[in-house]
Amino acid sequence: MSAGVRRGPGRPADDGADRRQAILDAAREQFAEKGYAAASVRAIARVADVDPALVHHYFGSKEKVFVAAMELPFDPADRLSVALEGDLDDLAERLTRMFLGMWADPMFRTPMLGLVRSAFTSEQGATMLREFVGEALLGRVAQAASTAGPVDPLRVQAAAGQLVGVVILRYVVRLEPLASASDEDLVALVAPVVHRHLYGG
Amino acid sequence: MSAGVRRGPGRPADDGADRRQAILDAAREQFAEKGYAAASVRAIARVADVDPALVHHYFGSKEKVFVAAMELPFDPADRLSVALEGDLDDLAERLTRMFLGMWADPMFRTPMLGLVRSAFTSEQGATMLREFVGEALLGRVAQAASTAGPVDPLRVQAAAGQLVGVVILRYVVRLEPLASASDEDLVALVAPVVHRHLYGG
Repeated sequence: MSAGVRRGPGRPADDGADRRQAILDAAREQFAEKGYAAASVRAIARVADVDPALVHHYFGSKEKVFVAAMELPFDPADRLSVALEGDLDDLAERLTRMFLGMWADPMFRTPMLGLVRSAFTSEQGATMLREFVGEALLGRVAQAASTAGPVDPLRVQAAAGQLVGVVILRYVVRLEPLASASDEDLVALVAPVVHRHLYGG
Repeated sequence: MSAGVRRGPGRPADDGADRRQAILDAAREQFAEKGYAAASVRAIARVADVDPALVHHYFGSKEKVFVAAMELPFDPADRLSVALEGDLDDLAERLTRMFLGMWADPMFRTPMLGLVRSAFTSEQGATMLREFVGEALLGRVAQAASTAGPVDPLRVQAAAGQLVGVVILRYVVRLEPLASASDEDLVALVAPVVHRHLYGG
């Protein structure tokens, strides 16, 4: 038995892949039960019957455990961090392009739509999505956008509403011409609205 | 056996309420199978084993059959028609207030969220929602907004995206402060965006 894992009676022999999988299963269970905010690496490790250090070793942080457990191909917060760098004048355009670009990728869209669907079908799904989006994504936008002066969280959420609504009508409802429009046409239409929400005018 | 209904063997004795219910059951089946556009009053009547005239007698139109079958407390297109009357300058504000007002009503919100959920869970649900929204709602907005000059359908859909995204973040994801904001605060934030999408600027 290797270090960092306590094997219970009757548990099959496990290697790294098994332990990683056990962590992901435990993480899905914990996030679904407790939401994103209240789930902890410690509790996930306990349920997976591994040492918390092993969770950090495999994934690095709770956010990254969540991303892996939800089978997202990348952490949207990492893309967001890149978009948040640079001129505030172009921030809205970078955010809009980043957001539409992520959703254009079916590897991201499919699991992300699953997450949104779970918000429609259960209270726990809604809590999980709300806390992840609020903590890992919107809080960072509000902070970055506020460099030039405080930005009302309601305005950040109105901007998010424009982006979320467009991708739902584009990829779920599939209204035409929206479903077939180019990302760049949508950036031209939507980025000024995101800018307006963040900075008024 | 009363006029307007052909009773099959083994079918229980029916009165007006039974026939109305049979029409609604048939309608749900037809809309789910064929979508909104391809379902017809004639086919619904055939499945319900009643005369098409009886469907018109009870409901008036396919749109109203749909509204009743989906258990919406009113036809959103009727609210829309009221909002579309009047000055084009205030059109966006009236549309935004009408839209948020409908969604504030749990009698509307609950079945409407069911419809949106079905778009997430099945291809047929998406088709049904897309065709109803496109035909009964957005087409009318585009037509009314175009009085002052043609309005690009993509712009109408971007405006719809702003409204849809806000109600999803407000009522499904329940982000704060959006979930607790007053309708009027949201009208102030969102109506100028709807106006901008419809009329540029």
